[in-house]
Amino acid sequence: MAVMNKQVILASRPQGAVTPDNFRIVEAPLGSPGPGEAMVKNEWLSLDPYMRGRMNDVKSYAPCVELGAVMVGQTVGEVVESRDPGLIPGDKVLSQLGWQLYGIANARDLTKLNVKRVPASYYLGVLGMPGITAWFGLHEIGKPKMGETVVVSAATGAVGSVAGQLAKIEGCRVVGIAGGKAKCDYAVQELGYDACVDYKAGNLADALRAACPRGVDVLFENVGGEILDTTLRLMNTYSRIIVCGLIAEYNQSEPYGYRNLRSVLVNRIRMQGMIVFDWKDRYGEALGGLAGRLAEGRLKYRESVVEGIDNAPAGLIALLKGGNFGKQLVKLA
Amino acid sequence: MAVMNKQVILASRPQGAVTPDNFRIVEAPLGSPGPGEAMVKNEWLSLDPYMRGRMNDVKSYAPCVELGAVMVGQTVGEVVESRDPGLIPGDKVLSQLGWQLYGIANARDLTKLNVKRVPASYYLGVLGMPGITAWFGLHEIGKPKMGETVVVSAATGAVGSVAGQLAKIEGCRVVGIAGGKAKCDYAVQELGYDACVDYKAGNLADALRAACPRGVDVLFENVGGEILDTTLRLMNTYSRIIVCGLIAEYNQSEPYGYRNLRSVLVNRIRMQGMIVFDWKDRYGEALGGLAGRLAEGRLKYRESVVEGIDNAPAGLIALLKGGNFGKQLVKLA
Repeated sequence: MAVMNKQVILASRPQGAVTPDNFRIVEAPLGSPGPGEAMVKNEWLSLDPYMRGRMNDVKSYAPCVELGAVMVGQTVGEVVESRDPGLIPGDKVLSQLGWQLYGIANARDLTKLNVKRVPASYYLGVLGMPGITAWFGLHEIGKPKMGETVVVSAATGAVGSVAGQLAKIEGCRVVGIAGGKAKCDYAVQELGYDACVDYKAGNLADALRAACPRGVDVLFENVGGEILDTTLRLMNTYSRIIVCGLIAEYNQSEPYGYRNLRSVLVNRIRMQGMIVFDWKDRYGEALGGLAGRLAEGRLKYRESVVEGIDNAPAGLIALLKGGNFGKQLVKLA
Repeated sequence: MAVMNKQVILASRPQGAVTPDNFRIVEAPLGSPGPGEAMVKNEWLSLDPYMRGRMNDVKSYAPCVELGAVMVGQTVGEVVESRDPGLIPGDKVLSQLGWQLYGIANARDLTKLNVKRVPASYYLGVLGMPGITAWFGLHEIGKPKMGETVVVSAATGAVGSVAGQLAKIEGCRVVGIAGGKAKCDYAVQELGYDACVDYKAGNLADALRAACPRGVDVLFENVGGEILDTTLRLMNTYSRIIVCGLIAEYNQSEPYGYRNLRSVLVNRIRMQGMIVFDWKDRYGEALGGLAGRLAEGRLKYRESVVEGIDNAPAGLIALLKGGNFGKQLVKLA
């Protein structure tokens, strides 16, 4: 089967904000799977903030994308041809095939998905990296106790929405920070946040203080910049900050200057960075917990879909500006 | 016994750097101890960076000093009159009597000192709060493993000198940061640091990078500001930062803007603030460990002495600028 593939490659490295010309869309014929490999037709591509970091040529926790290489990303898709006994055409799989319509991967790099109870796309969100990130960040670093106040920035995003709901399940007062009234309303009315502060409304410090009358015990930080710096002033003694993402900084050519770090000393805050890979041996534990709460109806989940691979660059650009509402996906097929 | 006392009181709150006119020296007759109390003649006053914070009228981990009140501070002295059966004249005691020649305290707020093996003043330093701070900060937060690189700022100070030597005992590569060649030479030649970087020589980033060829696993931070921000860039994956002091910020009216906080995320750093009181139920454990290492000759200790209570303000002002060399004391008698 000779397949014409379509790919999004990294054409240039962004200076500050990502622009459409940092990408190029190319077509190329695809070969055939070798022994132990399978060809996958991608159906959904996950767009995630970490991708911005991979576009830079600097040291980070993972190698950057080379110029001319396919943009990295997780996908779910369907096996269309297999030379591995463990996979047959029609199997739904999770892969790291990146921004392309098709790909060939070693079977051991493909995870077969059970799509009887949940849509395949959920494995890119609530039952995927974002959900697992929220699970371990909250439970292993944040360690919220019943009655404590937990603040979640990017409160309706793929990670934040799960973190906030998990904190509610733990019996916490949960306060979101999100951009715009629609997201804040959704956080409170659908996700069950006790309050949600619109950072775009100005007046973040006062609004957050009003929403957290007993201070902040856990901050699940996905944004950074002014949001982190402001919340630092409200942290309680022995509070915890999960540094999960700093999306506010990713598009900046100059890093933000945090002025309230003294709060870490005065309040004996534990501030800890995390990446979901740190718990890769324990993903099953998180997935079990997330799937159980999803089945019980205690986890709501929302997807934001961009249609077609040609629109993937615009989707990432919007995501990095907070334009998504829920988990951002690209529908490829 | 009618005693004329001399006290240093807080006359005004500093705007930025502390100045001599923030203090006033007063004389006042002292009363007599009531039941359960003792009168102490202070011999040594400890000067410590935390005192700067107490001069401000802002929320911190301890109440501020009121205008007109005696400056807070630990002292060691001798009981001159006692109305408590547990104390007799001649006993050496540790107290919180502050910046004054005499004081009357409840006996339960006085700790009787064993001065057979070590000078009484040691209980204000290596066997006191600074030593205990170093002990718990290093062992409970830093948790250095053999062969790791530990950086200690204010490397020859009361806390830093103990932290650095304890890290050497743990088998680490220990790199100090200090101000000036004399301190750096002392750190390496006397305290056993593997290297010491002079931050006043300029070129901190390059010098520190050269001294830490395998990066930094533990930062024992007493200084903050540029030193912390620079070291953040050299931190290794899963490294730890003990935020023990931020003396570089204490005299600034505008807080420092930290630009390298992203390293916390990328390297999954655990950054944690500490105050020695957090372990107050376990002081004995630290004191036992410190006294043992001191007796074995494995902990060197240096004091910097200002003579007379009239010079205590100048002593604190110098300390806050790094003018001390070792533990800063005021000799009161």
